[in-house]
Amino acid sequence: QMYSNVVLNLDGDILEHILEKMKESRGVHNDTDLTADDLKELVALFKTKVKEELGHDFPMDPKEQLWGAIGAVFSSWMNARAITYRRLNNIPAEWGTAVNVQSMVFGNMGDDCATGVAFTRDPSTGEDYFYGEYLVNAQGEDVVAGIRTPQPINKDKHKPGDLPAMEDVLPDCYQQLVKIRDILEKHYKDMQDIEFTIEKHKLYMLQTRNGKRTAKAAVKIAVDMVAEGLISEKEAVMRVAPEQLDQLLHPSLDPTAAKTVVAKGLPASPGAASGQVVFSADDAEEAAKIGLKVILVRVETSPEDIHGMHAAQGILTARGGMTSHAAVVARGMGKCCVAGCGDIKVDYASQQFTAKNGLVFKKGDVITLDGSTGEVMQGEVPTVQPELTGEFGQLMEWVDGIRRLKVRTNADTPHDSQVARDFGAEGIGLCRTEHMFFEGDRIMAVREMILAADLDGRKRALDKILPMQKGDFLGLFKVMKGLPVTIRLLDPPLHEFLPHTDEEIDALAKEMGVAAQILKAKVESLHEFNPMLGHRGCRLAVTYPEIYDMQVRAIMEAACELIKNEGYEIVPEIMIPLVGEVKELAILRANAMRIADQVITDYGVKVDYLIGTMIELPRAALTADAIAAEAEFFSFGTNDLTQTTYGLSRDDAGKFLPFYVEQEIYPSDPFVALDQVGVGQLVRMGCELGRKTRPNIKLGICGEHGGEASSVKFCHRIGLDYVSCSPFRVPIARLAAAQAVLEEK
Amino acid sequence: QMYSNVVLNLDGDILEHILEKMKESRGVHNDTDLTADDLKELVALFKTKVKEELGHDFPMDPKEQLWGAIGAVFSSWMNARAITYRRLNNIPAEWGTAVNVQSMVFGNMGDDCATGVAFTRDPSTGEDYFYGEYLVNAQGEDVVAGIRTPQPINKDKHKPGDLPAMEDVLPDCYQQLVKIRDILEKHYKDMQDIEFTIEKHKLYMLQTRNGKRTAKAAVKIAVDMVAEGLISEKEAVMRVAPEQLDQLLHPSLDPTAAKTVVAKGLPASPGAASGQVVFSADDAEEAAKIGLKVILVRVETSPEDIHGMHAAQGILTARGGMTSHAAVVARGMGKCCVAGCGDIKVDYASQQFTAKNGLVFKKGDVITLDGSTGEVMQGEVPTVQPELTGEFGQLMEWVDGIRRLKVRTNADTPHDSQVARDFGAEGIGLCRTEHMFFEGDRIMAVREMILAADLDGRKRALDKILPMQKGDFLGLFKVMKGLPVTIRLLDPPLHEFLPHTDEEIDALAKEMGVAAQILKAKVESLHEFNPMLGHRGCRLAVTYPEIYDMQVRAIMEAACELIKNEGYEIVPEIMIPLVGEVKELAILRANAMRIADQVITDYGVKVDYLIGTMIELPRAALTADAIAAEAEFFSFGTNDLTQTTYGLSRDDAGKFLPFYVEQEIYPSDPFVALDQVGVGQLVRMGCELGRKTRPNIKLGICGEHGGEASSVKFCHRIGLDYVSCSPFRVPIARLAAAQAVLEEK
Ligand SMILES: [Mg+2]
Ligand SMILES: [Mg+2]
Repeated sequence: QMYSNVVLNLDGDILEHILEKMKESRGVHNDTDLTADDLKELVALFKTKVKEELGHDFPMDPKEQLWGAIGAVFSSWMNARAITYRRLNNIPAEWGTAVNVQSMVFGNMGDDCATGVAFTRDPSTGEDYFYGEYLVNAQGEDVVAGIRTPQPINKDKHKPGDLPAMEDVLPDCYQQLVKIRDILEKHYKDMQDIEFTIEKHKLYMLQTRNGKRTAKAAVKIAVDMVAEGLISEKEAVMRVAPEQLDQLLHPSLDPTAAKTVVAKGLPASPGAASGQVVFSADDAEEAAKIGLKVILVRVETSPEDIHGMHAAQGILTARGGMTSHAAVVARGMGKCCVAGCGDIKVDYASQQFTAKNGLVFKKGDVITLDGSTGEVMQGEVPTVQPELTGEFGQLMEWVDGIRRLKVRTNADTPHDSQVARDFGAEGIGLCRTEHMFFEGDRIMAVREMILAADLDGRKRALDKILPMQKGDFLGLFKVMKGLPVTIRLLDPPLHEFLPHTDEEIDALAKEMGVAAQILKAKVESLHEFNPMLGHRGCRLAVTYPEIYDMQVRAIMEAACELIKNEGYEIVPEIMIPLVGEVKELAILRANAMRIADQVITDYGVKVDYLIGTMIELPRAALTADAIAAEAEFFSFGTNDLTQTTYGLSRDDAGKFLPFYVEQEIYPSDPFVALDQVGVGQLVRMGCELGRKTRPNIKLGICGEHGGEASSVKFCHRIGLDYVSCSPFRVPIARLAAAQAVLEEK
Repeated sequence: QMYSNVVLNLDGDILEHILEKMKESRGVHNDTDLTADDLKELVALFKTKVKEELGHDFPMDPKEQLWGAIGAVFSSWMNARAITYRRLNNIPAEWGTAVNVQSMVFGNMGDDCATGVAFTRDPSTGEDYFYGEYLVNAQGEDVVAGIRTPQPINKDKHKPGDLPAMEDVLPDCYQQLVKIRDILEKHYKDMQDIEFTIEKHKLYMLQTRNGKRTAKAAVKIAVDMVAEGLISEKEAVMRVAPEQLDQLLHPSLDPTAAKTVVAKGLPASPGAASGQVVFSADDAEEAAKIGLKVILVRVETSPEDIHGMHAAQGILTARGGMTSHAAVVARGMGKCCVAGCGDIKVDYASQQFTAKNGLVFKKGDVITLDGSTGEVMQGEVPTVQPELTGEFGQLMEWVDGIRRLKVRTNADTPHDSQVARDFGAEGIGLCRTEHMFFEGDRIMAVREMILAADLDGRKRALDKILPMQKGDFLGLFKVMKGLPVTIRLLDPPLHEFLPHTDEEIDALAKEMGVAAQILKAKVESLHEFNPMLGHRGCRLAVTYPEIYDMQVRAIMEAACELIKNEGYEIVPEIMIPLVGEVKELAILRANAMRIADQVITDYGVKVDYLIGTMIELPRAALTADAIAAEAEFFSFGTNDLTQTTYGLSRDDAGKFLPFYVEQEIYPSDPFVALDQVGVGQLVRMGCELGRKTRPNIKLGICGEHGGEASSVKFCHRIGLDYVSCSPFRVPIARLAAAQAVLEEK
């Protein structure tokens, strides 16, 4: 039937129709329900039809059949689908295709026949144990089909009531297989996934290939094989896929525990967590203060929820995609998050949410989230903690001996910084000071600044923020103990600090004691059509220099204090965002130096500091030679650089980006893996131009790509000094950086 | 006093204080009210103070004074302000500065002395007439100060009651001056602006330089001088600043007419117009239908007002900047517009606006706008029409003989296309089909399409739009008579076609017979945070291919019909916007070719067509080699390319862009003059990469830069085939293109 269609080009429906009629007349549903006689009759009908349609007999000579099949494979290379596929994927037509001709063995010729699959080590734990299943008197597809239950090949995993193990039934073949296992592992120097068939007591190997495995197994197998002398340390480092490590770094659900899944959303940030449901950031914070574990459930989150997200064990949102605020922030915190869970309906008024099946969860009810699968479960499901020593620790030691790229972290709090240090971070590559602006009482001072009518008013408000910001930096510097710390000055547009709905505005107006109308007018005047491309970053500071002045003072006072009083060695790195034109940086750098030098003089200590910029706009990359004259370091902000280079808003792309990735219009989500062809070209250009002007300029990356393996390798190849990523991705970046070194040889 | 400050570095306030005290004691206000004796006394006081402050006498030796002054000029090169200025403007310090030492002549030594200024031709009309003014017994500053009224130099402009002309008073000097006029024009081959002084009957020339002139004078002088054999045609072409032409291409206020200015806004689109005030686009259209001239007054305009803007003589808005919707669209239409006029308060409810002085204008009252100055005037002020033949026509004939760049126009209607052809456009470089989506009843069909639940519903709605779109293209092709026409397929995000306020949504829901809730939900689901970077352009067509299918069908049916029935020669150019990745284009081009070829087959005619793309995202420019494989032409969309390269939203930049330009952080508004360093680098790269893949690829530009002189010259230098600009800027682009050729020699 397939031959007629694929080789003879007979319309597939023609024979299918005959088959359907036959099944109908026999009153059966499945092809396999037809008897041998039925099939014989069917074949005769098929042959007649083929002759009728094509004008010649169905070829019965096996050689003729074989040549026909070979010809069909070759000509498939030039069919319309293949041509389109090649055109879209830039595959030259002249490559051609190959044909593999094999003879068949049969595992279903009696009870001295069998078929099976095996892994040379346990693919789940990595244990050095021959792990496999087989079926007597069966073909390969029977193992997969699930009609008969395959049995373990070796008897020690045998449970009462099981059919006998292959070790018992076909001991000679089993022993032969064990020997082959050894030969294959020695030859391929890796765990193998093998398929075999036994035809009348004779063992045939059908296939062997490197076996898929869990992260845990990958690490264990690699480290074990070094100990066994099979592979070198470098080979071991190449054996673990960096992205896999993510599984190892978060708590995960105990695989043996029972669970009741009540909803499913997007697996937005890995890990598992249980806690009582709360519906507001403030509630989360209060509960955390008295030691309760909570899950923050929101329709979606905004920057004002950050303190609650910090306090919670996990975050669940009803709306938003993999790149929504909740998802991005949670990943940054290494906190588990299920986002865009359309299965639940959140009702803030009654403080409850309803799952798809109608089950209602009230404030205080316990749920469990699995951020690696997107599952939401009723009650508490036990979790297991990650194991970062043992084989993992050994592997990472080798990794650190190999890599050239430094790995820093994106962190805004002492807590995150400590987590990152524990994961091996060698400094902070991006501290986003605006996160500090939302915390506690300072948001009120920030709003006071925004609403101030004049410079004096703004300065009065900034004076209130200064000691708090200084405290933030003291905390960070202490945790980082002299490691480099890059602090980015205020970046978002001011309207992000103000409420937007009428009710919120009224409430805030009352709280601040200003007329709601004034507040509303301010919110309106700050409104932007495209905030991503708006009045933010260094543009804010060019028009309101007093904001950065305060921040630079806070940074330098914190550094000077620790240097003077506690003997720290700190070289603060002050980073000015969203520069597109060198003159912006020239002006702001001069301002910053004036303040910094004055603080240094006031403290009477010797302190070095660096002033640099983000390269996150195409124009910055294109004019990096000019910008480098004013910058002591560049940090490539590839999140925004991707948005501007593609003209693609991360907040809005949800409507078509998944479709683009699925259709392979984009090879992958460019916000996950750096687009090396386009965005990467600008990064490379920025490096080259920057070094042309200032050969010793420090170059790093602080977009989320800094923690994605293929992007980290790209950063290595173009010669960056460091990557910076969220704390939980630091080990991934370390591993990728080591692999990049090994791959270039 | 100035010497003490500038040369001796004495604080300026010190002597000023003595002067102020002296004036106070004499009870006078102006320095010039002090008597000679007062001044003598003052000088003595100054000298004493200088000695007291500096410890040495004020230098009285002229040579010493001169050397002091020379030294001060040289050392000014290294002061802080000069250093900063040089750093910001990339001027090398080693250039140094020059000092010019001149001896003085005196025009105020008696009645045989005089001083004056003159233009060798009339700077306002260009007439070959010696135009100048003088004062007997006076120095240069007396002419400028306005205390005495200068007299004409020649007697034929003499009016009764005037003081005698120089021709009468100092006839020998006058004759000498007339001869010098001739010598200078022959030498400099340009109209001169001269300053002269007569000391005791002896004529001294103080200065001569090329004189500033109006556009009209520039054209006339250039063309006359060719006739006089003074300059070549090429030199004449170089003599007129392209931007100046703008003055000549629009009606302007009769300079002799009286006017009452009641408000002032931004000069958003040049020209002058009078008409009755209306407050809605529909009213404008109705009034225009019965032959009334109207001025459309709005708080701001939106795409739904386009038909009213077309119908009106001019547009006045209370809000929005030079790049607001009203300003951009009005410039495109060549219609006068005063935007962002904060002096007026518009009240739609009572159908009136109030000017700053309290004057109220009701619907139907007549006002006049001057879009070149931003003035709003009461009543009708007479205007004069532009003169496009005569010297202007002659100059443009030379221009067209020189230039290599083709000049096309951005036009969406037969009317605009005709205007552009009259201005010399050689095709349409950008027809924005979305403008057609807003007109008349089709907006309802568009909304029906957006609200449709499925593909079938969308197709039904699109079927209604098809004949209307086809009609649009028939109109355009007919006006353009075989010249190239580039049609851009739908570009804006769908939410632009839906209303946004609750009231508008409710009204539309009633009109469409759908539940307001459904409409509201759709509006909400289409909302974007950054629509500029959102689901629009080719991204819409990748997800909803049926929209472009309809548009391609409409284009091809229109073309085939005219070719078949009326013998036209048309090669439609179909342009796909917002491509960032070649696969988008590959998919959409295949779709478009399928439809186009089918229409061609249906009509049974031979038609060529081109499919190309906008290069308007940095990634498109960076990957132009790949994109060129699927594009037969590129049109650089430098508006969007500027927005994405700078990360700068044109709609939001008003808050800081004027400050940036004023502070010279940006050399000019990058939405007006193409940023050659950054954005231009991408354009250049796009050209080079595009030609590498497809050597004969057609290259053009269709951003607003296509009508700005420095940008047009850049386009010439990097080898584009054409520029495209709004109809009224076509002559500017033609002239700039010719100058670009002449400048490269
Ligand atoms: Mg950024
Ligand atoms: Mg565009």
